[in-house]
Amino acid sequence: MKAPSLSSLPTPCLLLDEARMQRNLDRMATHVRSLGVPLRPHVKTGKSIPIALAMCGGAPGPITVSTLAEAEACFAAGFRDVLYAVGLPPNKLPAVQALRARGCDLSVLIDNVEAARAIAACRAAIPTLVEIDSDDHRAGVRPDAPELLAIAAVLRDGAELRGVMTHAGGSYDCRTAAAIAAMAEQERAAVVRASERLRAAGHRCPVVSVGSTPTATFARDLRGVTEVRAGVHVFMDLVMAGLGVCRLDDLALSVLVSVIGHQRDKHWLVTDGGWMALSRDRGTSGHPEDRAYGLVCDVHGHPLDLVVAHTNQEHGLVARADGGAFDLDRFPAGTLLRVLPVHACATAAQHDGYHVLRDGTVAARWPRFRGW
Amino acid sequence: MKAPSLSSLPTPCLLLDEARMQRNLDRMATHVRSLGVPLRPHVKTGKSIPIALAMCGGAPGPITVSTLAEAEACFAAGFRDVLYAVGLPPNKLPAVQALRARGCDLSVLIDNVEAARAIAACRAAIPTLVEIDSDDHRAGVRPDAPELLAIAAVLRDGAELRGVMTHAGGSYDCRTAAAIAAMAEQERAAVVRASERLRAAGHRCPVVSVGSTPTATFARDLRGVTEVRAGVHVFMDLVMAGLGVCRLDDLALSVLVSVIGHQRDKHWLVTDGGWMALSRDRGTSGHPEDRAYGLVCDVHGHPLDLVVAHTNQEHGLVARADGGAFDLDRFPAGTLLRVLPVHACATAAQHDGYHVLRDGTVAARWPRFRGW
Repeated sequence: MKAPSLSSLPTPCLLLDEARMQRNLDRMATHVRSLGVPLRPHVKTGKSIPIALAMCGGAPGPITVSTLAEAEACFAAGFRDVLYAVGLPPNKLPAVQALRARGCDLSVLIDNVEAARAIAACRAAIPTLVEIDSDDHRAGVRPDAPELLAIAAVLRDGAELRGVMTHAGGSYDCRTAAAIAAMAEQERAAVVRASERLRAAGHRCPVVSVGSTPTATFARDLRGVTEVRAGVHVFMDLVMAGLGVCRLDDLALSVLVSVIGHQRDKHWLVTDGGWMALSRDRGTSGHPEDRAYGLVCDVHGHPLDLVVAHTNQEHGLVARADGGAFDLDRFPAGTLLRVLPVHACATAAQHDGYHVLRDGTVAARWPRFRGW
Repeated sequence: MKAPSLSSLPTPCLLLDEARMQRNLDRMATHVRSLGVPLRPHVKTGKSIPIALAMCGGAPGPITVSTLAEAEACFAAGFRDVLYAVGLPPNKLPAVQALRARGCDLSVLIDNVEAARAIAACRAAIPTLVEIDSDDHRAGVRPDAPELLAIAAVLRDGAELRGVMTHAGGSYDCRTAAAIAAMAEQERAAVVRASERLRAAGHRCPVVSVGSTPTATFARDLRGVTEVRAGVHVFMDLVMAGLGVCRLDDLALSVLVSVIGHQRDKHWLVTDGGWMALSRDRGTSGHPEDRAYGLVCDVHGHPLDLVVAHTNQEHGLVARADGGAFDLDRFPAGTLLRVLPVHACATAAQHDGYHVLRDGTVAARWPRFRGW
């Protein structure tokens, strides 16, 4: 059977260039290996079993998840070593215990004494990491905070302190490779400092976990770290390209859209790729090159000098970034275009699966999981 | 069996207050009936059969859809009269013809001669509306444009000109009821003018369709109009409340989230309701009251003086709108909160279904359809 061509696909839909994905994975694996630390890939970007397997080198390995639904789906596919890397509230403990009772080696993350007490009260030796705030950005306790030792003390009876982890999401606000490398060192130093405090207080701290795609890419030294997490490197996106983490031709995802009309006075192509297909993420709005809701390519994936300037639910308005005139007649109604995503995690989440491009044809369809 | 309480639901999840939904539907139905015009509700907000039925008064009726997947799902549930209200590119014609061949009275929308030629070439009498641009906002031909008559002439052989329609999305940029009422009149005048030109040129134009929730709400006179479309009125949202289209206690949707931690220095609650659960829509960013990523309520749905100020994929950072201090200890880890959505269409799209609240308990789960 001949593989379907792009023109047979319903638009909008999500395309995945498998060779680019594999190249991205190989590059990260080589770099992290050179630093002597194993990867625990994050499956929240791909949310698909074939992609999770590819991130682990072909067979189930240690993974990171952002929801218990991801943990469920991956455990059902043979993944056992799973870190749920979002702070666990007490009301999610029954679901965690149910998954662990079925054989999943699920570890959890907390950053406060209340959550530690709830976990300890289960007396189920749930492996627990303490989240460290390395960049003043979101969650976690500061590496020098008294609360770190208070949490560890609570966990001692009834839980298992597995270690410490941090995510330097602040790396997304860096603008140079040097700044990201400095953030990687800040991330490393924070979590290593926390691990040293725990050990000095008599605790075991086997896991010292860092990660974000930018810091993992530019880290030069990971002494004291036992694992690196990264997720969006699997696809890369315009935010990563804007940070210098990848090149535009590393972007493995695109959204196939159709031209449905024109507004000649405004120099707009109207397409069927709105925010329902692209997401509303505006992650490059603070970048020197703002890609609006996505960078537009021809059907072969070659970038044009066009962006998705505005989106409604099922409409994307394509324009030059400067709003100037271009030859709309090159793009009659029915023309297929491909939009490179601003934020791959957000764009992929709008779709139920991937049309996988292999050797220029649509070779497979990989479903995504979703929910919580 | 006792209905499950909110504390038994996994967070984040989507709640629908059925009584508020019904009140919103009744209010719109009464208003539009008073103007003497029938409703053709838009199912793109709810994307759920029980909700589509409620919008039609309990039994299948004429509906508007934004994707062919919505048309498929509704046709399978007994809806026959379906308007696909996004410009049809030629490459979607086979799917349209397949649905029509199965008995769906599917009508389509175009705004250019190329698309008209492709439809006419099918010689399948596909009912076709011409989109009119009434507000210089997105798609459509201007009511006085020569292209209107050119499209109608092309459709004459092989297609069926069903009429004209417009969507005054520009009403979302209005800031007063008077401005929205003026926009409603502009919307009416544009599409009626287009219908008169078509009839003067010898065409039939049975359908003259207008609609957006704001213009439908504030329209005072719909002479010459044959149907009104509206969708988001079913749930309402913070954008609609900001426009004065509804009150806060009309909002029928909320996202149930759990507190997972605190950042005391920053006066933040950290919750598990990130953009995956809320969407990245920032539709109130230009309003006098900017609700950021959502207005936070207690578990009973009573608004607090808090918004979701920042979102990551599975983290929502809750703060006072002015960033000031508040008593974080009122919200220990595990506390349930409800977030009112900025844009109901976008928030609902992040979920697979609704937990339906009836008489204060979770009485049903209604699945959503998605895709294209």
